[in-house]
Amino acid sequence: MADRIVIVGGNAAGMTAASRAKRLDPGLDVTVVEASRFISYSICGLPYYVAGLIPRHEDLISFDPPRLQQERGIRAKTGLRVEEVVPSRRVLNCVEMETGDRVELPFDRLVICTGYLPKRPGIRGLELANVLTVSRLEHGIKVRELARASGNRRVAVVGAGYVGLMMAHGLAGLGLQVFLFDRHPHVFRQVDADVAELVEQELRRHGVHLFLGSPVRRLLGDNGVVEGVEVGRESYPVDFALIDVGIRPNVELAERSRIPLGLSGAVQVDERGQTAMGGVYAAGNCAETIHLVSGKPLFSTLGTTAAKQGRVVGENLAGWRSTFSGTLETSVEKVFDLAVGRTGLTLRQAIQSGFQADAVLVKARDRAGYFPGSDSVSVKLVFEKGTGRLLGGQMVGDDTTAKRIDTLVAALTARLGLDDLAKLDLAYAPPYGTLWDPIQIAANVALRR
Amino acid sequence: MADRIVIVGGNAAGMTAASRAKRLDPGLDVTVVEASRFISYSICGLPYYVAGLIPRHEDLISFDPPRLQQERGIRAKTGLRVEEVVPSRRVLNCVEMETGDRVELPFDRLVICTGYLPKRPGIRGLELANVLTVSRLEHGIKVRELARASGNRRVAVVGAGYVGLMMAHGLAGLGLQVFLFDRHPHVFRQVDADVAELVEQELRRHGVHLFLGSPVRRLLGDNGVVEGVEVGRESYPVDFALIDVGIRPNVELAERSRIPLGLSGAVQVDERGQTAMGGVYAAGNCAETIHLVSGKPLFSTLGTTAAKQGRVVGENLAGWRSTFSGTLETSVEKVFDLAVGRTGLTLRQAIQSGFQADAVLVKARDRAGYFPGSDSVSVKLVFEKGTGRLLGGQMVGDDTTAKRIDTLVAALTARLGLDDLAKLDLAYAPPYGTLWDPIQIAANVALRR
Repeated sequence: MADRIVIVGGNAAGMTAASRAKRLDPGLDVTVVEASRFISYSICGLPYYVAGLIPRHEDLISFDPPRLQQERGIRAKTGLRVEEVVPSRRVLNCVEMETGDRVELPFDRLVICTGYLPKRPGIRGLELANVLTVSRLEHGIKVRELARASGNRRVAVVGAGYVGLMMAHGLAGLGLQVFLFDRHPHVFRQVDADVAELVEQELRRHGVHLFLGSPVRRLLGDNGVVEGVEVGRESYPVDFALIDVGIRPNVELAERSRIPLGLSGAVQVDERGQTAMGGVYAAGNCAETIHLVSGKPLFSTLGTTAAKQGRVVGENLAGWRSTFSGTLETSVEKVFDLAVGRTGLTLRQAIQSGFQADAVLVKARDRAGYFPGSDSVSVKLVFEKGTGRLLGGQMVGDDTTAKRIDTLVAALTARLGLDDLAKLDLAYAPPYGTLWDPIQIAANVALRR
Repeated sequence: MADRIVIVGGNAAGMTAASRAKRLDPGLDVTVVEASRFISYSICGLPYYVAGLIPRHEDLISFDPPRLQQERGIRAKTGLRVEEVVPSRRVLNCVEMETGDRVELPFDRLVICTGYLPKRPGIRGLELANVLTVSRLEHGIKVRELARASGNRRVAVVGAGYVGLMMAHGLAGLGLQVFLFDRHPHVFRQVDADVAELVEQELRRHGVHLFLGSPVRRLLGDNGVVEGVEVGRESYPVDFALIDVGIRPNVELAERSRIPLGLSGAVQVDERGQTAMGGVYAAGNCAETIHLVSGKPLFSTLGTTAAKQGRVVGENLAGWRSTFSGTLETSVEKVFDLAVGRTGLTLRQAIQSGFQADAVLVKARDRAGYFPGSDSVSVKLVFEKGTGRLLGGQMVGDDTTAKRIDTLVAALTARLGLDDLAKLDLAYAPPYGTLWDPIQIAANVALRR
């Protein structure tokens, strides 16, 4: 009989692992188990669905269980939560979400892809109605309903991380008044303060009300429904509230099954994705990874990293010997008319990681100055003093500059230095760039340090 | 007295060398000598000026001689052609273009930046009026006049290289009927045939009449003015004709001065830009460079490479020890709605260079399929069989994909392989890309070979 492979979690990592394993070895018996209602959807697409840019939530879904079975030969079971791995009997203790029935699911090999959970801030009033986090498709559907309900004109977004920023952008685009709160002095901790300021300008330019450096004390509401936000001595009336104060790896299943976690709090895995429990893999945001620049263990929050981990585990399930070496935590976000890209370490992260680091932030033209539409692009390069090794980069510009961060991704991966960057033979044409690329200009400024 | 530095040629390489030297050592006495009327303009901007996208030809000019003197302390002399270097007396024999007067110009150190010259095809009728090449600003001004003259509705473009393609695009954009001829079976020899076909589709979609694989025999015209083009047994009436059958290094001054040329036909220089004649440098398109992938000497045709060579020579003039290691011949062109990028070797070039080369061409989405405006991008990767070393890349997509070729530039520079490419932690957001980047998809297809 074929090896029974069970994959817990039906998104980026889980779906990729399942598809890759089945593709390489069609004889495998692969089942995906998912606690929520949906599998195989783009969580990154939620803000655009909320904003109405994508008409139906179904558009975000690549496969529903019947199609997955039919086209890829992979079984999927939604609404089933896996509570515990019983390694001695090779079964999973599960609960049917709808009925509460307990079910046992046998497996030969297992992949834990339980992803992440939103953190809960220390704020009173989180239990009020119309207060929600946005970490699943169901939440996105609910936010869209709230945003479109007549009378709902004001929304609080508590926390300006990836999700908070994207929701602020999407909801402001729908014409709502957005109040964006963060207890830190700047939005988006994935970039340095000077780059965050560019993002803040863009948010303000589009009418988002920013409240930075002052923590939300509580959510107000007399009738069980949120009606306001209290910050310092002020309070602001709102019709609903979204919470994004960060995420943490969803390791409940691992912990309950006594599968060891790593230093980052995510499930410890080797480079093939194997946990300390025989025949049990973990992949995606719940599984620890390594930062390729710092070499330190990391809880990655990105779908791209999750998919790559899933692919590696899928290949290993099929008998290959694949390894995943780590992440640069590369991301790009659209915040109104700005593309905000980042990769590797920020200056703050580099210093925290023990590097003798320095950085430059350079504003340059994104295309020939005489060309219609010429605009500016800001490039931040983080580098090691003395050696000039590149440690990270951040870029902010218009949509056409979004994927320029990838040049720095390749450079970081190959451990290029500032001197190499300055000499890169980058592409130029007046509609697309400048004779000296902004990356080169920034590298040359950094070299003068 | 300060060292007298004379730079022959006032564009990308010459201006960069002059500015860099003067900036690093303000005590230097720097003179730029240019045979034509203009210095310091963007030749790459000409097609957009011709197309009317850039209102005035002055917009393409960064410095005129008075401003160059005032802002950078660099003397410039236009309309002066340097005919010969007399090394024994450290003078240049020059001719004033307007008067024909002979002039001697003393120098201590010299930089030859004479650029390139258009090739002349073996076609009868080139002497007819309204037949021109487009390699200088003066030509662009003339083409724009011709394109806007009432009654001029049809233009022949003979040769579909960089300039021919750009002119076809610009003139078709003005509403002219464009007849584009090339004796090769495909346009744009800087990309492989399969990628060229994508460009050809775009040209045809925008109404350009393409005549490929059949050489133009002659230009027709009874009254000294071009009136038609003869191809095979057909002839096509046209109102003016542009010729772009390639370019060659402008080495007249070097040859006359017995400065040795390299295998490529361009002036032989060492990595610091020094010719075989003491105190005489060469930079830019007239100076030989090395292809970073093949390691072979090359006549580069690009402004980006010219500027880098000029910068290195400028630094050496100022007493630094700078070196230029070579070029990937990276370029990107806008052909109507397509951005066409290329870097490194094409498959044809790789095979010609002696590599056991193979290639894949993959069409993938440029952003999430559900995202409005989602389109396709084509990625061609050229690689070495066995080792999987990347040898070159070509990309065709919309404007937002233009600078994606730079990811491959960094990868080629760092000698990454297909396996590295497949694992790159590239940026993703639904408006800007896909969870698996097209470069990764292509690398994975190539790895299956």
